Amino acid sequence: MRLVRYLHENREEYGVLSDEGMIISLTAIADNIKRPFPKTLEGFIKKSGGKMAKLEAALNSLPEKVIKQASMPIGDVKMLAPLIRPPKIICLGLNYFDHIEEDITKRGKTVPDEPVIFLKPSTTIIGPGEPIVKPSFVKQLDYEAELAIIIGAYARNVPVEEAGAHIFGYTILNDVSARDVQLKDGQWTRGKSFDTFAPIGPCIVTGNQLTNPMNLRIRTWVNGELRQNSSTKNMVFNVYEVVHHLSRVMTLEPCDIIATGTPSGVGIALKPEPKFLKKGDVVTIEIEGIGVLENFVEEEAA
Amino acid sequence: MRLVRYLHENREEYGVLSDEGMIISLTAIADNIKRPFPKTLEGFIKKSGGKMAKLEAALNSLPEKVIKQASMPIGDVKMLAPLIRPPKIICLGLNYFDHIEEDITKRGKTVPDEPVIFLKPSTTIIGPGEPIVKPSFVKQLDYEAELAIIIGAYARNVPVEEAGAHIFGYTILNDVSARDVQLKDGQWTRGKSFDTFAPIGPCIVTGNQLTNPMNLRIRTWVNGELRQNSSTKNMVFNVYEVVHHLSRVMTLEPCDIIATGTPSGVGIALKPEPKFLKKGDVVTIEIEGIGVLENFVEEEAA
Repeated sequence: MRLVRYLHENREEYGVLSDEGMIISLTAIADNIKRPFPKTLEGFIKKSGGKMAKLEAALNSLPEKVIKQASMPIGDVKMLAPLIRPPKIICLGLNYFDHIEEDITKRGKTVPDEPVIFLKPSTTIIGPGEPIVKPSFVKQLDYEAELAIIIGAYARNVPVEEAGAHIFGYTILNDVSARDVQLKDGQWTRGKSFDTFAPIGPCIVTGNQLTNPMNLRIRTWVNGELRQNSSTKNMVFNVYEVVHHLSRVMTLEPCDIIATGTPSGVGIALKPEPKFLKKGDVVTIEIEGIGVLENFVEEEAA
Repeated sequence: MRLVRYLHENREEYGVLSDEGMIISLTAIADNIKRPFPKTLEGFIKKSGGKMAKLEAALNSLPEKVIKQASMPIGDVKMLAPLIRPPKIICLGLNYFDHIEEDITKRGKTVPDEPVIFLKPSTTIIGPGEPIVKPSFVKQLDYEAELAIIIGAYARNVPVEEAGAHIFGYTILNDVSARDVQLKDGQWTRGKSFDTFAPIGPCIVTGNQLTNPMNLRIRTWVNGELRQNSSTKNMVFNVYEVVHHLSRVMTLEPCDIIATGTPSGVGIALKPEPKFLKKGDVVTIEIEGIGVLENFVEEEAA
């Protein structure tokens, strides 16, 4: 299933996106059926506890009339970020071999033997089509296309081979970065924590649908120019290894977002010279099997 | 006011700690009066919006009988962390001149001209008296006594002179750190993100009571041995400057916790050799005007 949050007639709803471009409103279904059903996408993820089959069966058993009444064309809604209040947003640095080769932080192309992480605050989240706001004092604004894991069930000290059962699904996250701030501080957090610096979406694809997270094409365009073009097979730690390693540090919770690092082709690493984002630029990220996340750049009023 | 969360007869409540060692249960008062009153300490902070005077007047106008019925001796309760689900925990590194002098990360004693930050996940939080759990693979466990700001009202691009109006109050945070992990990664986040690595408490002192946050004695003992002994006057950025700077990066939200850095005397910097925390050690932190936060160390089962 591909799950979405959206605005329909000024009401926030969530639903399932069909292959035919229709949205089935799970909010409307929750209103109409007698059985208790999660009222929000966050509630849906928590309820799943990694057990999608049961929820899917419940949906499939609904009368066709109920489904039809709850359906609408995708053009009738405005997409929103699928999650806005995750308990955590954990991000990996240096997790693609091709990005490590770019050596943008001058660490010397060293491949980490455990994931290097930082956190983004939830105030960074925006949805598809919303503006990335460039603060007036930021000089080097950059994009980073990333496959993001959505946690479905609590995880602590989980072995690699059991990690999949704790993953609800996947989305796209753009780890927007102020390179000048990131490199000045040495610590990456501040340069990656500005409001609007985590566009996510357009949907969450459930783990039982996206069965090959280790071999997905991942691409970024800026104003139509191809900048990143890689595959998740170039990850140092694959999604299951990431969940394993992080669960040895902290309890992973339902709705946690884990951004799994970016491939090569970020603006600061371009030759012959870096290209940073400026007002009006359009950043388009596509990950195979998930969809397209597009945002544009605005300048903060001084 | 000094506000506390606690367990009383197996029920989570919050209340006011009096100078006489009595707790007045605001949960009980919320149950007993007709006016709408926040049911949780988090709700109380959100409702205050920086305007404590109104809430204090409401409390002072309550009949003595209501207050008396809601009162109990502090010995009858078990203290809990005052907040467990803050939207963010923002931590400053290198914010005391005396700690920068110790140079534990080998940066070269450079005083930052803007705060250097990292974030801790809310899964790190524990309360007074609860165990700090040393993961089996962590070799160098350390403490860091810190004054923590509790945000009361949304803040974005706030000038220094208005920052105080956005502060609800203050507590103590022990920024527990796995030095081996922190220094191996270079990025500090992972080594500071283990479950139980953020003891907080014992209470939140409101900003209108703690009027001198720039001149508070701050001390740490390990098993009774004095290790840190400084004053918040040695901060590079004082609490108002911290709120100002952070609000230029991200929207600060009610209940956000900002840990303002630690003074000298951390275990890794001790002479002639470092002293790290081990099983059974008791870490006691006192900040003038707030109180004492004490926790002990346990080892994770392998």
